[in-house]
Amino acid sequence: MKLILAIVQEKDTSALQAKLNEKKIIATQLATKGGFLKAKNVTYMIGVKDEEVQGVLDIIKGTCQAREQYVTPPISLAGSISDTSYPVEVQVGGATVMVLPMDSFHRF
Amino acid sequence: MKLILAIVQEKDTSALQAKLNEKKIIATQLATKGGFLKAKNVTYMIGVKDEEVQGVLDIIKGTCQAREQYVTPPISLAGSISDTSYPVEVQVGGATVMVLPMDSFHRF
Amino acid sequence: MKLILAIVQEKDTSALQAKLNEKKIIATQLATKGGFLKAKNVTYMIGVKDEEVQGVLDIIKGTCQAREQYVTPPISLAGSISDTSYPVEVQVGGATVMVLPMDSFHRF
Ligand code: NI
Ligand code: NI
Ligand code: NI
Repeated sequence: MKLILAIVQEKDTSALQAKLNEKKIIATQLATKGGFLKAKNVTYMIGVKDEEVQGVLDIIKGTCQAREQYVTPPISLAGSISDTSYPVEVQVGGATVMVLPMDSFHRF
Repeated sequence: MKLILAIVQEKDTSALQAKLNEKKIIATQLATKGGFLKAKNVTYMIGVKDEEVQGVLDIIKGTCQAREQYVTPPISLAGSISDTSYPVEVQVGGATVMVLPMDSFHRF
Repeated sequence: MKLILAIVQEKDTSALQAKLNEKKIIATQLATKGGFLKAKNVTYMIGVKDEEVQGVLDIIKGTCQAREQYVTPPISLAGSISDTSYPVEVQVGGATVMVLPMDSFHRF
């Protein structure tokens, strides 16, 4: 067994959770902050069999990977030269994942 | 040394904490959600000597194990055929426990 | 790679965070309670290379170590024999640190 600790952005948790549910993978969530993803994020604790590790890594990569996204900033109300707002590219998502060895797993 | 991560139901934490105190076992708690126990739960982080692992597992099993409990649902106010409420059996408690190896433990 | 779990007092987090930033060490924080430090505390999760472990332990010790501090208790309003409040020595700070082995570390 292995413990997968995945720190992901809050906005990616519903896509991640849906995929984990689909594969019947049980994950416990904790609210965290700081780290590589800055500000508020969510850490998943997932206990899996050794042969399931790669599948879970693929799910996390598929749903949480850092990517560029165009967002249109709101037009500022005062003192703006132009009254049009252009979309800017920002980076969203991203995940930090640690795989830890486990001595034993119990369900009572 | 080992790190025991125990995810338990909130309702079982006072019994668990009392037993851990009795054995002078120090545990740090974090609020978690989801996983096998669904909804809100509590994760205990307990750093112990190798020979203490089994004792802690026994305490968690003894205080948090899944069990059946009879609860009497409240009588519904409107449109109910009978005005008596019968007790129903529900499952409460349950714990997911992971034992992880530890390289070193420090207290500063 | 190793995972360092450090449980520290909330009052020591700004000094600790400043030192970690200075060394460009990324740490994720979670709100915890209980344990050796009692009441509310903060747990840091820090994934580091094996050769960085000692440096991080030194930083935690340097910023969070238990120490004596003189505090002047507020003068009680009613029924006090003396109207002067003398400083008393209390212990502040302290940290519990666990170093765990890691199989792999990923950033997506
Ligand atoms: Ni294994
Ligand atoms: Ni050991
Ligand atoms: Ni290593």
